[in-house]
Amino acid sequence: MLIREATGEDWPAIWPFLHEIVAAGETYALPRDLGEQAARELWLPAPPWCTAVIVNDFGDILGSVKMGPNREGPGSHIATASFMVAPASAGQGAGRALGTHMLSWARTEGYRGVQFNAVVETNTRAVALWKSLGFTVIGTVPEAFHHPVHGYVGLHVMHQPIS
Amino acid sequence: MLIREATGEDWPAIWPFLHEIVAAGETYALPRDLGEQAARELWLPAPPWCTAVIVNDFGDILGSVKMGPNREGPGSHIATASFMVAPASAGQGAGRALGTHMLSWARTEGYRGVQFNAVVETNTRAVALWKSLGFTVIGTVPEAFHHPVHGYVGLHVMHQPIS
Repeated sequence: MLIREATGEDWPAIWPFLHEIVAAGETYALPRDLGEQAARELWLPAPPWCTAVIVNDFGDILGSVKMGPNREGPGSHIATASFMVAPASAGQGAGRALGTHMLSWARTEGYRGVQFNAVVETNTRAVALWKSLGFTVIGTVPEAFHHPVHGYVGLHVMHQPIS
Repeated sequence: MLIREATGEDWPAIWPFLHEIVAAGETYALPRDLGEQAARELWLPAPPWCTAVIVNDFGDILGSVKMGPNREGPGSHIATASFMVAPASAGQGAGRALGTHMLSWARTEGYRGVQFNAVVETNTRAVALWKSLGFTVIGTVPEAFHHPVHGYVGLHVMHQPIS
């Protein structure tokens, strides 16, 4: 597997799994009927944001990460990131590789920490992965996410400093 | 004092104190050099967002609140809000009145809770006010705000359910 910066040419390969994940409504606070053009603008933003993809030996895109400043002005020294791994490619370590890449990127870019604003508490695989990479749960906003199966569940704020 | 919905005609009276607050860089994670047009778009967004102003008996605007959904899709049942009170009008209860108004608005609009994402921990008057209105600190992201006087300080995530 290899991680490289995404370009507009990667979008047709990203959209199918991004759409599948958003439409499922289990892990992202995005409209489940998010259209392709809005999704493209969301996922391939301008610098200082950066989007990367992880590809296998055949060049297939297994997942993607979007990274940038969590806030503006006096809050712009903390990074945030969003991850999408193709459900068909789950369990191969793509999420972990993208997470490690993101932390490396944030350190190189001079960020002082990384914050995830809304990790769905029932997304236990993601929560465990981020914890294993050094993140802690700062707090959990109760019932802040309406899960299609589990109903109202909490959203974790997760964070790790970059030393 | 009276609270009413803001219109575009109120902007010239809002901009001076909003600019003063943002330029001071002590309470908002916004660019300190935020321009007027960007500020206007930020503070007077389209529905479902709502902006209100609080005026005194002479019609002077003392402060303003912007209220809307904190997230999209499965997260859109939690409201958020931002407040600006003219420094020259501090201590008259405008912030408290705007906070109470916002909670009433959120209840009327059917939100299930209100979340503040980034309350600067050194903004002790605001933190105390929100606590007195029923908010609790869900967690504090360490060193997430670069204060011009105090250096790197924490950002509180605050929340209250609407019953």
